[in-house]
Amino acid sequence: MTEKASKNAKIDPWGSMKIEDYSKTIKEFGIEPFSTVIKKVPEPHKYMLRNIIYGHRDFGRVADAIAKKKKFVMLTGLMPSGKFHFGHKMIADQIIYYQKMGAEVYICVADIEAYTTRGMAVKELEKLAIEEYLLNYIALGLKPSRCHFYFQSKGNATYNALSKMVSRNVTFNELKAIYGKESLTPGKIVSALTQVADILYPQMEQGSCPTVVPVGTDQDPHIRLTRDIASRFKDFKFMPPASTYNKFMSGLQGGKMSSSKPESYIALTDSPEIGRKKVMRAITGGRDSLEEQKKKGGQPHKCAVYELYTYHLMDDNKELKSVYTDCVSGKLMCGECKKRCGDMMAEFLAKHREKRECARKDLGKFLKD
Amino acid sequence: MTEKASKNAKIDPWGSMKIEDYSKTIKEFGIEPFSTVIKKVPEPHKYMLRNIIYGHRDFGRVADAIAKKKKFVMLTGLMPSGKFHFGHKMIADQIIYYQKMGAEVYICVADIEAYTTRGMAVKELEKLAIEEYLLNYIALGLKPSRCHFYFQSKGNATYNALSKMVSRNVTFNELKAIYGKESLTPGKIVSALTQVADILYPQMEQGSCPTVVPVGTDQDPHIRLTRDIASRFKDFKFMPPASTYNKFMSGLQGGKMSSSKPESYIALTDSPEIGRKKVMRAITGGRDSLEEQKKKGGQPHKCAVYELYTYHLMDDNKELKSVYTDCVSGKLMCGECKKRCGDMMAEFLAKHREKRECARKDLGKFLKD
Repeated sequence: MTEKASKNAKIDPWGSMKIEDYSKTIKEFGIEPFSTVIKKVPEPHKYMLRNIIYGHRDFGRVADAIAKKKKFVMLTGLMPSGKFHFGHKMIADQIIYYQKMGAEVYICVADIEAYTTRGMAVKELEKLAIEEYLLNYIALGLKPSRCHFYFQSKGNATYNALSKMVSRNVTFNELKAIYGKESLTPGKIVSALTQVADILYPQMEQGSCPTVVPVGTDQDPHIRLTRDIASRFKDFKFMPPASTYNKFMSGLQGGKMSSSKPESYIALTDSPEIGRKKVMRAITGGRDSLEEQKKKGGQPHKCAVYELYTYHLMDDNKELKSVYTDCVSGKLMCGECKKRCGDMMAEFLAKHREKRECARKDLGKFLKD
Repeated sequence: MTEKASKNAKIDPWGSMKIEDYSKTIKEFGIEPFSTVIKKVPEPHKYMLRNIIYGHRDFGRVADAIAKKKKFVMLTGLMPSGKFHFGHKMIADQIIYYQKMGAEVYICVADIEAYTTRGMAVKELEKLAIEEYLLNYIALGLKPSRCHFYFQSKGNATYNALSKMVSRNVTFNELKAIYGKESLTPGKIVSALTQVADILYPQMEQGSCPTVVPVGTDQDPHIRLTRDIASRFKDFKFMPPASTYNKFMSGLQGGKMSSSKPESYIALTDSPEIGRKKVMRAITGGRDSLEEQKKKGGQPHKCAVYELYTYHLMDDNKELKSVYTDCVSGKLMCGECKKRCGDMMAEFLAKHREKRECARKDLGKFLKD
């Protein structure tokens, strides 16, 4: 998006981040814009309203299940790879939202995938998944009721049989489309088939029903594959899964937010002071001089601080809109804005630390088996 | 083997059946002749003495475990594909032998393999595996103690995780060597990895120990693959499995014995009268006329009746040798010989029918889970 366009986009403060890439994705892969379905959603999540969840496949039947209070499933996988940060929190927020909306929640730890495709050790992953992920999920609001938390390596016999039976209904060409012709390995095949089973298995427990898988765009090939395979099974009746697609947060220093670059993210276990410092060091959409900024206005679509507000720290749409307007009009300078964000971040982290300690006593309710 | 040679081979009446094919196998695939190890085996099975088990890999450590009464495992898989016949009985005989020799016996129903590579339905296979296979095994002498009978589709989580973790330690080229480059499919890959887990998993329950897998030559690629993979695991210490290789019985009408051709086999559930009739219709190594046979002698290496004696109906080596000698010397004519074999077969089937009915009450002891 050009600078000019961003200045004109005042009425849509959350539609302005690199939207052109996502529009391209929608066209290329046949993902539907989320705007086509949002009216059907009874209480849309802020990610939906702010176009952070920008696309979907077949979400209509999920929206319908929510509206009519019918059974539906939310499935997500996690591959523990380090500290749980605000990028990961996006998925946690969606899990908790769907649980509130009535979903049977399935959370799968992709330890088999981590082992076969990344060479990680299964035992270490278990600790990481519980300490870094589950504990934070609970602190953020996940409830044990209607929540199925499991490890790929520990699934029951039916789940495991399904993950193997899937292989009869898939071709090499489909798998090559996911992993690339050159880099396809037996380990990646097993990983892909296990993922398909993760997505379809809840329907073996719950019966045929809508399933939503909230993912980033990069996971779409798995969704397409699973949707195709679902319809090929003759032994079972699976409803093809629905999906939503969310944008990714940028790194605090620009570029990608990555678990392997601590300066790129704020972890939910970071101390309030570290969190505040990382905010103060983040890149913003500020101009070269105060004078220029007063004249041209700031660029929230390039600003890591504005992202933190939009994704995590400001639930109130009016408040967010006023930050946006003050920024692009040249009224709000980066120093002041960062300080406010740093305060909010420090407060969030301090509260979260307490919630996390409270959450520990509930771990057992999620790890029944 | 030429006709002349067979006449000279009187001292080795069980070494005469198509031995040249098996010698070739030994050379090509690096299988050791069983003769290199038989002296170490405390009580060799008649199949070993009669060169029906003609080759092995690494059997020395199994023989050693038998001799020293140390822990070892016998693993076999079965893919139910119809009536349980005398070809299948060969494997049952070996299972029961190893159980008597002190093995922990693992019998795996390859229902996942049948589903992914042959398009069979998992539920139907279960009935077939129990009614046609397990019941006959018990009737033939299998005991519930130290016997682990399980279905690939129902294995526990550790077994299933192993069958997926195997994928990290295998390359496409190795899998292509088993199934052929052109015909390799995702289903066949899953099948091969599951088989590797079948062979290695007992050591996860029993600890690292010798494992023997008695197979036909066609299964050797699976053995080689599993032996290679066993040594690559860093997470677990697996002893590479040993194997033995048995010859196959011919069909009663010549050619292959096949589940899809009822005239080629006698099923263990055939009535005594059907069994007798099938023997009487079997091809023999007889000559065109009685006169010629008296002059040249019969050809036991071409005779389905002689095979029945050697593999199943005559345990006494002296008795078998006298049949052989009388045949090749022209003293014993086919009519008389067939009648005797038919009587023995009818008697075997009548007794087996009774044993099979008794066996039913013990099924539950084998199907604990």
